[in-house]
Amino acid sequence: MVYLNEHNIAKILKAIDNNEILIWRELFLDLHPTDQVNLFEMLDPEQRQIIYKNLSSEEFAEIFQGLEFKEQKEVLIELEHPYAVDMFNNMYSDDAADFLGEIDDLTAKKFLEHMDDEESQDIQELLEYPDETAGAIMTTEYVAVTANETVAEVLKKLRQEAPDAETIYYLYVIDNEEKLVGVISLRDLIVANLDERIKEIMNVNTISVSVLKDQEEVANVIKDYNFLAVPVVDSLGVLVGIVTVDDVMDVMEDETTEDFGDMSAVRGAVDLDMISSEAAKRRLPWLILLLFIGMITAGIIGSFEATLGKFTILAVFIPLITGMGGNIGTQSLAVVVRGLALEKFDRKRVISLIKRELGTGVIIGLGCGVLVSIISQVVTGSHPVLGFIVGFSLFCVLVVSTLIGTLVPLIIHHFNLDPAVASGPFITTINDIVGLTIYFTIATMLLNYL
Amino acid sequence: MVYLNEHNIAKILKAIDNNEILIWRELFLDLHPTDQVNLFEMLDPEQRQIIYKNLSSEEFAEIFQGLEFKEQKEVLIELEHPYAVDMFNNMYSDDAADFLGEIDDLTAKKFLEHMDDEESQDIQELLEYPDETAGAIMTTEYVAVTANETVAEVLKKLRQEAPDAETIYYLYVIDNEEKLVGVISLRDLIVANLDERIKEIMNVNTISVSVLKDQEEVANVIKDYNFLAVPVVDSLGVLVGIVTVDDVMDVMEDETTEDFGDMSAVRGAVDLDMISSEAAKRRLPWLILLLFIGMITAGIIGSFEATLGKFTILAVFIPLITGMGGNIGTQSLAVVVRGLALEKFDRKRVISLIKRELGTGVIIGLGCGVLVSIISQVVTGSHPVLGFIVGFSLFCVLVVSTLIGTLVPLIIHHFNLDPAVASGPFITTINDIVGLTIYFTIATMLLNYL
Repeated sequence: MVYLNEHNIAKILKAIDNNEILIWRELFLDLHPTDQVNLFEMLDPEQRQIIYKNLSSEEFAEIFQGLEFKEQKEVLIELEHPYAVDMFNNMYSDDAADFLGEIDDLTAKKFLEHMDDEESQDIQELLEYPDETAGAIMTTEYVAVTANETVAEVLKKLRQEAPDAETIYYLYVIDNEEKLVGVISLRDLIVANLDERIKEIMNVNTISVSVLKDQEEVANVIKDYNFLAVPVVDSLGVLVGIVTVDDVMDVMEDETTEDFGDMSAVRGAVDLDMISSEAAKRRLPWLILLLFIGMITAGIIGSFEATLGKFTILAVFIPLITGMGGNIGTQSLAVVVRGLALEKFDRKRVISLIKRELGTGVIIGLGCGVLVSIISQVVTGSHPVLGFIVGFSLFCVLVVSTLIGTLVPLIIHHFNLDPAVASGPFITTINDIVGLTIYFTIATMLLNYL
Repeated sequence: MVYLNEHNIAKILKAIDNNEILIWRELFLDLHPTDQVNLFEMLDPEQRQIIYKNLSSEEFAEIFQGLEFKEQKEVLIELEHPYAVDMFNNMYSDDAADFLGEIDDLTAKKFLEHMDDEESQDIQELLEYPDETAGAIMTTEYVAVTANETVAEVLKKLRQEAPDAETIYYLYVIDNEEKLVGVISLRDLIVANLDERIKEIMNVNTISVSVLKDQEEVANVIKDYNFLAVPVVDSLGVLVGIVTVDDVMDVMEDETTEDFGDMSAVRGAVDLDMISSEAAKRRLPWLILLLFIGMITAGIIGSFEATLGKFTILAVFIPLITGMGGNIGTQSLAVVVRGLALEKFDRKRVISLIKRELGTGVIIGLGCGVLVSIISQVVTGSHPVLGFIVGFSLFCVLVVSTLIGTLVPLIIHHFNLDPAVASGPFITTINDIVGLTIYFTIATMLLNYL
């Protein structure tokens, strides 16, 4: 296998343009599949047609399953129907299902009807599973053996099945009813005697996941046990597929992107290829909701107009109070959201986290409160009580904002509500409202005593 | 191998308490290493002593390398020195180096001096590499073969080395000078004829990473090529270690946690086990810096005191203007930070991203600006021009804030500055300053024409 570099890129492109089919075919097929994809992405439509004409649909399947969904859709239009059908036959079932599940049902059906029965059925079964479950991300290309086979027999079988299976490093042991009864790693197989039977060397306490298990939990199983793959079983214990470590890395990446989007109420608009109007359409509903909630802040200040009319200088510290409340709330939010992604929270953990954040809020509140009361007194000069108002308000706001930043995501998580509500912008907006109420209440009370 | 469940937990704990050594040893050692760790974490100090006394240091090494750093430190105090030394001898070199690199130098030296020469030297070499590089996360337990060996010879060798190597699924081919010349997967080995020589079936174009390569880039190589491991070479091309896919998953998780911390200026305080004072100590410097920058907002409003004195109602919309600027800035920030984590940005990509975000900002700005000018006019009633001031200001603020949220992280990334500066709180604070300046400038200009 060869990897892509400037030298062979030039060579292959030249051979394609000169129509030296034998030359570029050899160079191209020698490339690592990921690099075949990388090179294919450099081609123009005309060069791509040369590829389709001179690669078998089996050879091209390897490339197609490495492309992004958007690219796959563009390529599919350029393919002749029988070639595409045969390509789907040769793809890993999970990759084929991923693509056919995303395009419109009619087109997908057109391909599924013409595909080989077995492949088509595998894919249709995968399409039945809900999104983001083990069933939706698993592949059906695994190596299954029975407990009575000998090591020698299995090694022989492996030589035949190795090219088709997604991984051969774990072999799954099934009984007559196709129920999963054990697993054996290729590592164990290699060190075993050739005449030993699988049942003598297999692990009988197999960790498996249910087809309906959430993909994030599947990822955690693989990560925690350092597995290269985990078997997937249905409710009867029948082996239906495996999830491999490379699929899990994609899942981890997707889940992180989702968390990032949620954290900032971007809602799936993290995709850089999206056009402005589409991105705006996704973000606008949340911003308009925030705008309406934000109008409450105008109402609060309006209701303290009497105080503000007498002491205009109070307005000067509004952004400082609301800004700092937002900042500290965002910090607590980040801690909780990341914590929830990394581990399960039990009651004890939740209580200790709330205590920790509350303690942190009090310390930070004291520090910032004292500092701002001194500075504001020095800056504004004439108002000794104003410094106290601003400092004390900031202390209260920081403590309360920390609690809001901690509690809101925990509540959202507990009740399975929309996580975007626990985003930075939402927390900041709520903290604005609470912060202003605290600030003006304290100011009105103290200034009326003067 | 057996996995942990309520049944065997109870059995093992009972056997430990009843001092039935043979019984719990068999049950315990039958557990998957990850579950040995899980069970060990349930024990009290007295039970732990029974473990140390009745497990060999080699058996306990497996558990120790699965513990968190904090737990490892607590356990080490409970171990006798010779037992601990021997345990380090039996750990994977990367795990041992991770731990010994974190504790104080004197203690680490005490162990390294008493360890086996070869192990000790391996670890000391690993400790030389800078944090977050391939060298710092690689292991030296790989299987190396030479090009002239036959498949049969290598398979025989594998049977001996399999228990010690971190992975046997890739074999690395080295020459007389220990330079990496090829790689062969166990998959290829299994399908090859027994009398073939390695040089006939190995891949000669091996992808390797340099010891000083950033760990995030190493993770990307493994992820992009769906590798189970990648070889690490020094500047002369000598094979010095491998990075395995499970290490890379830990790296991905750490990098995401880092991004989350940076995004909200939490600075490593995402760790839930940290006590309040420590968390406050890490967050406070950034908040105090933000407090000082935030004081600028007070100065800006103060400089428009004349306008504000005449039109107190302007104060009412301050939090709405600053809040919405912060929200939209946070959204753009999240898009850019996540985009930077997922792929390399070239000039073309950067320009198209800025255009996209600017377009999104204009659309959102128009929507929110028109909406708020209508609402504020309805609510405040008497001031027809006020609605226009608020709406037009909001439009300008949203467009500018989008640009700031997009450009600041790109600039930070380009100049390799401290990424915490591109955090939500920083962007929000900068947007507060810019937003207030826009709002009061527009208001002063328009109101003076009345």
